[in-house]
Amino acid sequence: MCRYLFCISFNGAAYCGWQVQKNGITVQNVVQDAIERILGLRHNIVACSRTDAGVHANNFYFHIDLELKIPILNFMFALNNVLPADIVVKSIVRVGDGFHARYSCRCKEYIYKVYIGALKNPFLKDLVLPYGRNLNMNNMLEASKFFLGRHNFTSFCNSNSTVKDKVRTIYFIDITLENDIVIFKIKGDGFLYNMVRIMVGTLIEVSEGRFCPNDIKDILENMNRKYAGRTVKASGLYLNEVYY
Amino acid sequence: MCRYLFCISFNGAAYCGWQVQKNGITVQNVVQDAIERILGLRHNIVACSRTDAGVHANNFYFHIDLELKIPILNFMFALNNVLPADIVVKSIVRVGDGFHARYSCRCKEYIYKVYIGALKNPFLKDLVLPYGRNLNMNNMLEASKFFLGRHNFTSFCNSNSTVKDKVRTIYFIDITLENDIVIFKIKGDGFLYNMVRIMVGTLIEVSEGRFCPNDIKDILENMNRKYAGRTVKASGLYLNEVYY
Repeated sequence: MCRYLFCISFNGAAYCGWQVQKNGITVQNVVQDAIERILGLRHNIVACSRTDAGVHANNFYFHIDLELKIPILNFMFALNNVLPADIVVKSIVRVGDGFHARYSCRCKEYIYKVYIGALKNPFLKDLVLPYGRNLNMNNMLEASKFFLGRHNFTSFCNSNSTVKDKVRTIYFIDITLENDIVIFKIKGDGFLYNMVRIMVGTLIEVSEGRFCPNDIKDILENMNRKYAGRTVKASGLYLNEVYY
Repeated sequence: MCRYLFCISFNGAAYCGWQVQKNGITVQNVVQDAIERILGLRHNIVACSRTDAGVHANNFYFHIDLELKIPILNFMFALNNVLPADIVVKSIVRVGDGFHARYSCRCKEYIYKVYIGALKNPFLKDLVLPYGRNLNMNNMLEASKFFLGRHNFTSFCNSNSTVKDKVRTIYFIDITLENDIVIFKIKGDGFLYNMVRIMVGTLIEVSEGRFCPNDIKDILENMNRKYAGRTVKASGLYLNEVYY
């Protein structure tokens, strides 16, 4: 029995998020079924995190303890053959028994995509937040710098969250424009429930003039969800990388 | 009552093609419903062509005779608000009564996209033909030149087609590679049923070595569907432009 770390990428449009649940098909369901179909056994999957319905992943990780009797690459090839077109296994590597997809994670990077083209783009359906007008990049960039460093992110956490320690560190944040898509990239040691979506929603409200860039400082200090901006749609969110 | 020419773009993944039919939702259904919802009347739509289930369009045209009491741009804005995320109206222009979306068409351009990345890309689901390995660009380019000009395309037409005159003229054909996507671009005065998909399928079989580049000449001359290559999937096909 060895521990393997899987890296997958998925288009979350058709799924109720990663984690198995009662009310719909999840990415975990489909991956677990695919593995069972090839190995003949149901395996326990330990993932780097959950994702909400409609959220995507460029790189999402999970570990499984397996008795693998075929070469890893053959197993990966077989899995990709069985998995649907919106989920792909990118790599499988053997890791030590002490490695844990969730607890060994040092930091994570998310991307959020906002489409600013005046007309919606039918080929970006479910892959971006359609916004349809310009965003004030300068003001958003200025505002975004207040997120850097160690802060209590209570104001940027869904109020239903039961997590007690809401202090997180943001290492990097940048906002760029590429082919009418504004890309928010945020790297931190951990993220609270809806945190990226509320951060981006608040930055968009900075662009809209509801907040000044340095209001972010006060919103953080107020430690209350009601002071931050709206939670933007899941469809623009991508788990981009997990760092171990 | 004036005649208007509409240009729309749609992601065909969720639709049973353009034309209204019994067994599923079509793009025409959705567009007609949207127009009816805004104007309160069912209108007759005359389109530039049909498209098969799963086929996309960057620019697809239809005309309607309308009594329009609001400015065209307001009408277009209202329509885009009502239409789902995978269909967008790009322009509406007033045309003369003699103009006809189908019969006034001088030529059409199609694009076909083949993804050659070794791993499938979940974000291109339903938007390309996943091929997973390299294509021999040189051989396909050499072969493609035999399509240029005026030929009888019986060999490149679905054998169920009832069209009698199968002579068509190809003005332009090119094959390029961009970010692991091989793009076939074909412009002609008209296209038979499945013609682009059989042309691309045959060029792929040239790449695979089943045909030599100059076999295309013989396949055309044989005037029999069985001599050409396979019909590739609808998901890679885009109506790119219609020239009036």
